[in-house]
Amino acid sequence: MLSIKELQEKITLAFSKQTFKGEPSLLYAPIDYTLSQSGKRLRPLLVLIACEMFQGDIEKAINPALGLEIFHNFTLLHDDIMDKAPIRRGKDTVYKKWNTNIAILSGDAMFILAYDYVIKTDPTLLPELLRLFNKTAIEVCEGQQYDMDFETQNNVSIDDYINMIRLKTAVLLGCSLKAGAIIAGANKNDIENIYEFGVNIGIAFQLKDDLLDVYSDVKKFGKITGGDIVTNKKTFLYLKAFELAKEEILSKLKKFFSLDESDSNIKINGVKAIYNELNIEELTLIEMQSYYDKAITNLNKIKIQDERKQNLLLFTERLMKRES
Amino acid sequence: MLSIKELQEKITLAFSKQTFKGEPSLLYAPIDYTLSQSGKRLRPLLVLIACEMFQGDIEKAINPALGLEIFHNFTLLHDDIMDKAPIRRGKDTVYKKWNTNIAILSGDAMFILAYDYVIKTDPTLLPELLRLFNKTAIEVCEGQQYDMDFETQNNVSIDDYINMIRLKTAVLLGCSLKAGAIIAGANKNDIENIYEFGVNIGIAFQLKDDLLDVYSDVKKFGKITGGDIVTNKKTFLYLKAFELAKEEILSKLKKFFSLDESDSNIKINGVKAIYNELNIEELTLIEMQSYYDKAITNLNKIKIQDERKQNLLLFTERLMKRES
Repeated sequence: MLSIKELQEKITLAFSKQTFKGEPSLLYAPIDYTLSQSGKRLRPLLVLIACEMFQGDIEKAINPALGLEIFHNFTLLHDDIMDKAPIRRGKDTVYKKWNTNIAILSGDAMFILAYDYVIKTDPTLLPELLRLFNKTAIEVCEGQQYDMDFETQNNVSIDDYINMIRLKTAVLLGCSLKAGAIIAGANKNDIENIYEFGVNIGIAFQLKDDLLDVYSDVKKFGKITGGDIVTNKKTFLYLKAFELAKEEILSKLKKFFSLDESDSNIKINGVKAIYNELNIEELTLIEMQSYYDKAITNLNKIKIQDERKQNLLLFTERLMKRES
Repeated sequence: MLSIKELQEKITLAFSKQTFKGEPSLLYAPIDYTLSQSGKRLRPLLVLIACEMFQGDIEKAINPALGLEIFHNFTLLHDDIMDKAPIRRGKDTVYKKWNTNIAILSGDAMFILAYDYVIKTDPTLLPELLRLFNKTAIEVCEGQQYDMDFETQNNVSIDDYINMIRLKTAVLLGCSLKAGAIIAGANKNDIENIYEFGVNIGIAFQLKDDLLDVYSDVKKFGKITGGDIVTNKKTFLYLKAFELAKEEILSKLKKFFSLDESDSNIKINGVKAIYNELNIEELTLIEMQSYYDKAITNLNKIKIQDERKQNLLLFTERLMKRES
């Protein structure tokens, strides 16, 4: 059985063999620029881990794995326009480096490329793989729309939030694992369990992200913490605090969140103090753990030897303990 | 053999059975809004005409036909953002009615829907259909990028222009016919010839569009003529005029094209007078005819009875003679 490191090397090698250059150059240069930044490459790794876990042929999974990574990067490219995000992975975003029109169109082209890679596999798998991919892709769009809706909505519940991150982030992790399992020819129950495992881990993963924004070590995190607080982003922490805060604490919380970006230090420190008072870090960890536990229940239902589950378990633990 | 009218009714009926509503409503409402405007529905009709021509099963072709229409509408939706076009088919464009973010994201979702319909057919056809669809989709993006590039480029040749409209418009007509032929199980040569037929007709179709903008009867055309002149769009007519104009006429042409939109009547009439002097209408018709002739050569190579080609021929002649 290949190790995580060996699987990662397969992905790096496969990406290094691709070329995304072409004419007209303003269409292809942003694609090449985006895909040559490596990122974490979580999604293709999940495809290969699942394929390996069910003793599938990794070679059949490589192209769909790249396809899911390209799809993920396409969504980031378009999201960055919508979110007006100037920086991604320490570099200018495409719309900032070029312009909005180029970011829209090169994103569209990248989306087509994603399909092109997803379909480069055993043709008999196409109907199932494409149904999965289409369903996931549309859910990711739904998640992004809910996320945008929430910006101006004052009655977002924690359930709404969990549903949003399930769609925007978690289903693509589930899809990656499921794609690997389909390619390996796993049975229907195992395929559904690994999908649900991925979705639950994905929710825990996003909750961890919310936490890291507030409670991480700046040096390890690699960016300034408190960004979500400054922009009033309705994260789990924000929603939990508003759920729990009463009277004086509630009015202080509202006051701090009404400060604008020029007062960012006062705002971050003020909100953090209230989060500490309300025990928000602990509560977020408990919520995270509950999704992690659900995921482990899904994993336990998969009827293969425990040792074949080790890669996935190891990788998941690293994700949960990560500091950036 | 079904008539064009009967095939059109099949498309209308199939569209009327679909629902594009869903949650979050800001994602789905623009899709429903776009797809409930009927438009010409040329592309799905071409799919069915080709399928019928090669004696295929129309029922297998309906979903892919809808998919190509949805894809076409997706490209219009994103193009309207890039071109800042406020009106389409007499109604506000999506980015104008909602906003740019919603237009980007609902466009993305519509693109996924297009794939969803394209794949709802005989699974053994998927590899070939998807290779065709992906290739076409990426070419349409390339065409749109060239079109945007040309806005700021001063050395656009007529060959560049023909290549741009081939990519932006013509290949999707070729793809529609080819998809129908693939679904009908036509032989390889016939499939390639009907594709080339579609591409050549597509180029002629766009040249007709360029002509109609300047030389159509406003009442029949349904919109104000001269729009391309006002916006200095580098159409075939524009490029041909600059190719032929010398000395005094050239400087007059430059002068009229340097007028801004507030002088639109003077600009349109001035440019039209020069077009008339240079015989541009006639020259465009000759160019159109040359692509029509190429298309007919392609059609003649298709080895089926002439009577089976009648629908396509009739439909193509109508396209060429259209006044709007």
